[in-house]
Amino acid sequence: MARVSQEHLDARRRQILDGAALCFARNGFHATSMQDVLKEVGLSAGAVYRYFSGKEELIGAIVGEVLDVVGGVFESAAEQSPPPLPDEMLPRLLATLKKVRPGVVHNGEWIFPRLMLQVWTETLRNEDLAAMVHTGYARVRAAWAKVVEGYKAADLIAADADPDAMARVMIAIAQGFAAQMAVFGEMPPETMRDGLRAMMSMRHPRSAA
Amino acid sequence: MARVSQEHLDARRRQILDGAALCFARNGFHATSMQDVLKEVGLSAGAVYRYFSGKEELIGAIVGEVLDVVGGVFESAAEQSPPPLPDEMLPRLLATLKKVRPGVVHNGEWIFPRLMLQVWTETLRNEDLAAMVHTGYARVRAAWAKVVEGYKAADLIAADADPDAMARVMIAIAQGFAAQMAVFGEMPPETMRDGLRAMMSMRHPRSAA
Repeated sequence: MARVSQEHLDARRRQILDGAALCFARNGFHATSMQDVLKEVGLSAGAVYRYFSGKEELIGAIVGEVLDVVGGVFESAAEQSPPPLPDEMLPRLLATLKKVRPGVVHNGEWIFPRLMLQVWTETLRNEDLAAMVHTGYARVRAAWAKVVEGYKAADLIAADADPDAMARVMIAIAQGFAAQMAVFGEMPPETMRDGLRAMMSMRHPRSAA
Repeated sequence: MARVSQEHLDARRRQILDGAALCFARNGFHATSMQDVLKEVGLSAGAVYRYFSGKEELIGAIVGEVLDVVGGVFESAAEQSPPPLPDEMLPRLLATLKKVRPGVVHNGEWIFPRLMLQVWTETLRNEDLAAMVHTGYARVRAAWAKVVEGYKAADLIAADADPDAMARVMIAIAQGFAAQMAVFGEMPPETMRDGLRAMMSMRHPRSAA
């Protein structure tokens, strides 16, 4: 039997994850069977089970990869001096996610944000997934807090700003944009940018006396 | 048969909605049966079906009420001159929601945000609910845009800020806080306030040249 190249294995793995992500985004985890995934990727059960033991492992792999990408985006931003501002960061995150999961398209729409909603809801009853999401969130939260420290060092934000609270707001904005895209359809990056710029142009309440 | 007072009817209706909201928040819509709701509220089927024809109608009533409350909070803020700033608005929204649905408590935690997650996910497969959420969202978005116009009139924000884009960011923050509370547990209003203050203290990117 010919040895299969690592490249081939990786491509196959990606193909399976892409198909599974699309199925989950479209119909949710519970309404999706392994049979649906096999049909979507056009591979035999044998070929798929060689990579993943089942739905749980597929979900874990998809979520783990996304959390890793998101964590990486913010960690590399934290290394920049000064870090990019929020109106640049969030459209960048969106662009990165589109690059990682370009295939999650249904009726011409990129429905990856629906997958995020499904994942959050699923954490309410799946402890392994909840633990994974907790860890990923802690990483992003720490990276964002470091970004805020970078803003402070560059005098781009109030010296007494709470980095962790600000991190939670920035993450909330990303989560809320995802919720809006899931429920109402795609959101142009320019809208994100302009909305964040508006927010950043507000007068500091404590200097408004 | 004695006539039942309107007060009694209202209280009964509220009792049913509270119990149903708790069931839905705890277990999701699909895993909750009308039997579960009857058990939770401690009423007979006859008593409950007098008010609601079934799960769909309960979900609709709960979601409609919440959307109405949220819309009202922002519409009354838009009437103020100047409107309260975001660091005051979002904790106010949280306090209002806690007043409307105080009973959605499980193991000592207010789990109403889980219900919001369930609703968003449910809109992906329930068109009536999606239509209701779309209408409620449009109302909140218009009210927030009016708030932003109020900020402009009071010179609290850049004159060229995009009110609708800013409205989407503010709604995203509320949605994201809900997602975080659903997945990670309650969030102190002070954290929301401090995070929003930090965000509002940022230097305007276009004046940072």
